[in-house]
Amino acid sequence: MSTISDLSLVELRRDLHKYPETGWREFRTTALVAEALEAREFTVALGGDAIDPESRLGVPEDLEGAKRRAREEGAPPSYLERMGEITGLVASKRYGDGPVVGVRVDMDALQVNEASDDDHFPAREGFTSRHPGKMHACGHDGHTAIGIGVTREIDDVSDFNGTLKLFFQPAEEGGRGGKPMSQTSMLEDVEYFVAVHLGLDLDTGTIIAGREHPLPNTKLDVQYSGRPSHSGHAPNEGRNALQAMATAISNLYGIARHSDGVTRINVGEVSSPNPQNVIADDARMRVEVRGETPDLETYMTDRAKTIVNAAAEMHDVEMTAELYGQTTTFEPDESMVRAVSEAADHVPAIETVIPRQSFSGSEDASFLIREVQRTGGEATYIGIGASNPDGHHTARFDVDERALRIGVDLVTRTIEHCEQPDRSI
Amino acid sequence: MSTISDLSLVELRRDLHKYPETGWREFRTTALVAEALEAREFTVALGGDAIDPESRLGVPEDLEGAKRRAREEGAPPSYLERMGEITGLVASKRYGDGPVVGVRVDMDALQVNEASDDDHFPAREGFTSRHPGKMHACGHDGHTAIGIGVTREIDDVSDFNGTLKLFFQPAEEGGRGGKPMSQTSMLEDVEYFVAVHLGLDLDTGTIIAGREHPLPNTKLDVQYSGRPSHSGHAPNEGRNALQAMATAISNLYGIARHSDGVTRINVGEVSSPNPQNVIADDARMRVEVRGETPDLETYMTDRAKTIVNAAAEMHDVEMTAELYGQTTTFEPDESMVRAVSEAADHVPAIETVIPRQSFSGSEDASFLIREVQRTGGEATYIGIGASNPDGHHTARFDVDERALRIGVDLVTRTIEHCEQPDRSI
Amino acid sequence: MSTISDLSLVELRRDLHKYPETGWREFRTTALVAEALEAREFTVALGGDAIDPESRLGVPEDLEGAKRRAREEGAPPSYLERMGEITGLVASKRYGDGPVVGVRVDMDALQVNEASDDDHFPAREGFTSRHPGKMHACGHDGHTAIGIGVTREIDDVSDFNGTLKLFFQPAEEGGRGGKPMSQTSMLEDVEYFVAVHLGLDLDTGTIIAGREHPLPNTKLDVQYSGRPSHSGHAPNEGRNALQAMATAISNLYGIARHSDGVTRINVGEVSSPNPQNVIADDARMRVEVRGETPDLETYMTDRAKTIVNAAAEMHDVEMTAELYGQTTTFEPDESMVRAVSEAADHVPAIETVIPRQSFSGSEDASFLIREVQRTGGEATYIGIGASNPDGHHTARFDVDERALRIGVDLVTRTIEHCEQPDRSI
Amino acid sequence: MSTISDLSLVELRRDLHKYPETGWREFRTTALVAEALEAREFTVALGGDAIDPESRLGVPEDLEGAKRRAREEGAPPSYLERMGEITGLVASKRYGDGPVVGVRVDMDALQVNEASDDDHFPAREGFTSRHPGKMHACGHDGHTAIGIGVTREIDDVSDFNGTLKLFFQPAEEGGRGGKPMSQTSMLEDVEYFVAVHLGLDLDTGTIIAGREHPLPNTKLDVQYSGRPSHSGHAPNEGRNALQAMATAISNLYGIARHSDGVTRINVGEVSSPNPQNVIADDARMRVEVRGETPDLETYMTDRAKTIVNAAAEMHDVEMTAELYGQTTTFEPDESMVRAVSEAADHVPAIETVIPRQSFSGSEDASFLIREVQRTGGEATYIGIGASNPDGHHTARFDVDERALRIGVDLVTRTIEHCEQPDRSI
Repeated sequence: MSTISDLSLVELRRDLHKYPETGWREFRTTALVAEALEAREFTVALGGDAIDPESRLGVPEDLEGAKRRAREEGAPPSYLERMGEITGLVASKRYGDGPVVGVRVDMDALQVNEASDDDHFPAREGFTSRHPGKMHACGHDGHTAIGIGVTREIDDVSDFNGTLKLFFQPAEEGGRGGKPMSQTSMLEDVEYFVAVHLGLDLDTGTIIAGREHPLPNTKLDVQYSGRPSHSGHAPNEGRNALQAMATAISNLYGIARHSDGVTRINVGEVSSPNPQNVIADDARMRVEVRGETPDLETYMTDRAKTIVNAAAEMHDVEMTAELYGQTTTFEPDESMVRAVSEAADHVPAIETVIPRQSFSGSEDASFLIREVQRTGGEATYIGIGASNPDGHHTARFDVDERALRIGVDLVTRTIEHCEQPDRSI
Repeated sequence: MSTISDLSLVELRRDLHKYPETGWREFRTTALVAEALEAREFTVALGGDAIDPESRLGVPEDLEGAKRRAREEGAPPSYLERMGEITGLVASKRYGDGPVVGVRVDMDALQVNEASDDDHFPAREGFTSRHPGKMHACGHDGHTAIGIGVTREIDDVSDFNGTLKLFFQPAEEGGRGGKPMSQTSMLEDVEYFVAVHLGLDLDTGTIIAGREHPLPNTKLDVQYSGRPSHSGHAPNEGRNALQAMATAISNLYGIARHSDGVTRINVGEVSSPNPQNVIADDARMRVEVRGETPDLETYMTDRAKTIVNAAAEMHDVEMTAELYGQTTTFEPDESMVRAVSEAADHVPAIETVIPRQSFSGSEDASFLIREVQRTGGEATYIGIGASNPDGHHTARFDVDERALRIGVDLVTRTIEHCEQPDRSI
Repeated sequence: MSTISDLSLVELRRDLHKYPETGWREFRTTALVAEALEAREFTVALGGDAIDPESRLGVPEDLEGAKRRAREEGAPPSYLERMGEITGLVASKRYGDGPVVGVRVDMDALQVNEASDDDHFPAREGFTSRHPGKMHACGHDGHTAIGIGVTREIDDVSDFNGTLKLFFQPAEEGGRGGKPMSQTSMLEDVEYFVAVHLGLDLDTGTIIAGREHPLPNTKLDVQYSGRPSHSGHAPNEGRNALQAMATAISNLYGIARHSDGVTRINVGEVSSPNPQNVIADDARMRVEVRGETPDLETYMTDRAKTIVNAAAEMHDVEMTAELYGQTTTFEPDESMVRAVSEAADHVPAIETVIPRQSFSGSEDASFLIREVQRTGGEATYIGIGASNPDGHHTARFDVDERALRIGVDLVTRTIEHCEQPDRSI
Repeated sequence: MSTISDLSLVELRRDLHKYPETGWREFRTTALVAEALEAREFTVALGGDAIDPESRLGVPEDLEGAKRRAREEGAPPSYLERMGEITGLVASKRYGDGPVVGVRVDMDALQVNEASDDDHFPAREGFTSRHPGKMHACGHDGHTAIGIGVTREIDDVSDFNGTLKLFFQPAEEGGRGGKPMSQTSMLEDVEYFVAVHLGLDLDTGTIIAGREHPLPNTKLDVQYSGRPSHSGHAPNEGRNALQAMATAISNLYGIARHSDGVTRINVGEVSSPNPQNVIADDARMRVEVRGETPDLETYMTDRAKTIVNAAAEMHDVEMTAELYGQTTTFEPDESMVRAVSEAADHVPAIETVIPRQSFSGSEDASFLIREVQRTGGEATYIGIGASNPDGHHTARFDVDERALRIGVDLVTRTIEHCEQPDRSI
């Protein structure tokens, strides 16, 4: 059985890197984090307490298999039992009467085959993924390590006098875990809130105090179910799910541009596996739309739904369109952007501070940030440069491990600053 | 004012050729024929007596203008008044107690620009169309002349002792006039029935005693109505009728082939006239489906309707699909095929008799033939070779005028044979 | 024979409104304007001197017919003769050694059916279009009147001491006349340049000193030529131009959005006139693309050409894609924006000055403006509010005729200001 | 190590059923058959002697892995070595001066998941597939057993006095093995030839003496390769392989019907696996066309190639279209149909003989049959009813094992009849 309490920041990141777990399958990660934080007397909310089960999106099959695998890889069984089939946790600890400060890190990996040659640092150092086809290719291993690092720093060193609340979010990829985590009561008392992300094609030593305006998006899993028939003997008896899908795809890309701003549409994960001599009875795709604003996103989603639905009617096949994932947008509070900027002054390794920068991607921390803001709290999203040698989501993505320390220090200083904004930190 | 009573067969055909009238606009032709036959004491049914008004398909606009034009071109006004806005007539005369024999000829022209150079016989002889863009390019001028010729022959020469009933049908092109003519009571007492057609890429002197098995077809006029908007300022505010139509067209051609036999699909008369800087709010097309059997035609029609409808839903536009024309199929009665073959023996100019031949086209005499057969009568469809120098429906179509006489003689002998099948004619 | 020399500004506009001439058919307008200006001793360049014949786009057929019609409507024959088949003119007059100031107005009408009820001011006053289906629905009648008014004002009243040069441009609609006018030598010596437009959904009394950043666009006339065949007998022998076009349309709307900015795509003027029982051998459409920058416009044009071309290959038909019209973009010079603003201070009827405003439409004065700027001159594009009761290009478009006087005064004051920027005007 | 020499017909079929091998992977089957027939002193041609390596179609990857698996499952290594990477064999034995008679059986399995419940006979009897996802779902296990059974019968019992030549063909599914087997010299001396098939939805006891007129078909593996890009950040930088494929699919189904006869088109094995936030750089499909005649098949193949190619150009992506499989058609010789019918009279278990019956499917024995006929031999294709409880290619397909004996007896009697057509057998 593993425990992560004795591991250094870098060791911890490497351990997580070796056992990447994709969305809603982060059983090992959740269990090890929970164990380590309970050991420090954090109150740990698991399962349905950390995540609203009904709001979960894009939940994969065979969670039991994933849990079994986690157990074999050292996840403490008592925690596996407590979390049921729901990954993710919220850990909090009260140090004094000061404000409640929340920190969100995400934990899930991607379906990417990690590079195995010596040009790839994790390969050179022997800590590449033990799970074929899966990889921490977006730095969430580092995020989780930073989350643990912050708890240690506040616990052991800082004079922070409020309540610290860590949100270890599952299933960020695809935008599936943010919304259900935002719909528990866990955010209600949070007054200050930061989310963090490593990499972003920035050099180590550069940070963004307020990443902002990600594109709201919606992902739909669309499945057409027709009727098979032999394409030679009885083509007319079939109901062709593939023709429906092909028509839908062509028309989805043709959704009219919107005069109010940026919109996006794309289709992936396409398959229709019938043999070529059978009229297709099954065709599937994942559709993603984005818009610069929630209204634009809604415009795209509405049109996309109309199209995928009419394509089914056109070919007399059944259609289901399930929400696979969703994100929204946010704007950091200026007070928090300033807090991070000032905190950065106290982290010597930080050389450059970009106050604000827009995303053209999407992010489901958006749901947590908006929820905090809705209830009167203040929030921001911090970017931490890590000289990533290749792009996010690629087989050669990696983070400069020096950035882990920078992340811990910056977040810790920001937390302290939230408590005593006026003191000279 | 014209009258056709004094014209020879060839003169009559040439007069009609000069004044071609397209479907439902045959006011001049109808009036002149009616006048000529009433002069011979035929009982003439006009307007709603010859055609069921409710069953008319593909009725064009501005019938009043067509009527005015007919009057200017010599149509006797009293007949124009009697027929109202409905062209076509049925003329009958009783000669004795013998059987009722029906003959159907059609009268309408096509939207074709007639050739005007000297290689084209009507141009050389100076009787090309006086109506720009319209032409008797399928021989119906000859059919009408044959109909008149048969009445003269029976009236003046023959010892036919039954009742002769001539059906001068409007709007055969597009399959629009046959059904409404079949749905009056005019066919009820018909015991023997022949329809005739000139040309058919056969030499003069060759006839078909039983043309058979035309493909049932259905034509739909489809119109999409969207919402216009400026394509630069507000493309999203439009509802694009053109995108709907384009998707429909691509999918219509993709209707699955049927294992039970021949099917056909085609689209024509397509337009979407919006300027290029306006999202299209109007898009129109005519869809035609055919099938080897009524079931196959129904299969195609059902699928086509589903597609054109779903394309509207896909782009959130309104759609109407109106029946423009329709034909069915038939099989000649063997007795009638034999009757025509035997009659042909008595027409010296006929050298070759093809007993039966299938069509790959469509024909709305099918409705009249089936109605006669349904009520116990016997029917056939006669093809009369006329050495047409170019294909039907082209600018250089023409018929060898010697075939007019052959047609009159063959039909007259057939009528006589129907009365006295056993006599040696 | 008409002459416009004796007409007031309002009478002139109404005369032009009664005889709307669409692009490249402005024979009457050109001849009358030329005659009036030669009467005032302007030097008038016509035909190939005013317009580069090779650069003309979207030239319609039957120019001779249009010229004949113009003659019947009072165009002086000597001018019709001088211009040949090319409309548009440049008129210049030297008053002294001061700078050369150019003014561009456009003259063409649109294919719009004018409203005829009493709610429409031109109907109430009896000066609606005498040309069915054509209408001055974008105010160019007023622009031409303003051009004439400015020459009168400078000639009769002003102490302007430079050279005045009026560009009466044909075929602005569709972006067909601006480029060929910009490619003569006529702009070479122009130091200051203004173009004017009435309406723009602004109230009378409001002006824009610098309309800017119209979207560059390109319009292509695409024609597919296939092979006809009977859709029942031989569908396989056809080459289906309609299928090619439908596929092209669906894919054109699907051109990927561009991350650098706004793009637009639309299709209009679509037709494929084959009867429904013939495989389509002819299909046509006009494709329009726009982009926020010339690069984006090029991106769209390139993709569109690739698509329309591949659609032809896909269905084995011939394709031609002819440039129908084109515009580019521009930015007014700040000096000119200021000049117009200051001139506006001296026109009491002007209450509101908007210094700059972007277009989301397109405009081919862009070519003239860029050419002036390229050779060192300064230019702007003036918008003149005219309380238009309904949108541009609609059947009820109209301009408040008080705006004509405002236009003349504003342009005259601006011309004077260009000559003596420092004087107190 | 296995040997099949001691197994009964039923045991042999069950052994093969347990170890299904898909096309070009039949290493175990080939090796065991070769060993068994060499043991009986047949001359066995393997590898490049039995199959023209250059003509092979649709050869899968990792043949070495398949061979290794075969070795583990008892395939004699010496045979594996002799055949190289090519499966299939031809075994011949001369008994006397009589004619050379060829028999073709096929050996490959399908990618079908076999049913495992007790309603399925192989499950009840414990001989279902040991290879997950693969199954003898078309009876080729039985065909191979019949081939072995015939050699035993001729060898042990019959007084056949010619040369017997068995063609154990690989990769019939998809039409991949027939052509390369037909292009060796092995068929040159064959005077009489039969191919056999079990099942065909006929009851045990019914046979077809001459299955005929299968539809020629062609299968193409089409792959589009585009350029990936982030669908949010840079959709314009991608080259969308999925859009190309969707357009191709819609247009493939729209290939015009042919007036000369039956045509078919279908698409299967479709995938485009990019995540939804990446513009698709990879899209694949298998296209199958059929025609009633080789000309019709060529028409469909040509059109399909044109479409898949133009779709690539339309979206500026690369495309490859590889021939995956191909079949042709044939007509059995009447002499052989009679021979089989007469042979059937001597097999008491056969109750019904259907002389001839058309296929609406496809079959690559067609290449062998045509080759035999081309060189002056005579051939037929025998169908052997086996009361299959569910359709071919389904998870519950099975054959009544009594049909194995019928097959052996019918083929043996036919062979004898070929040698001595006049004797009373």
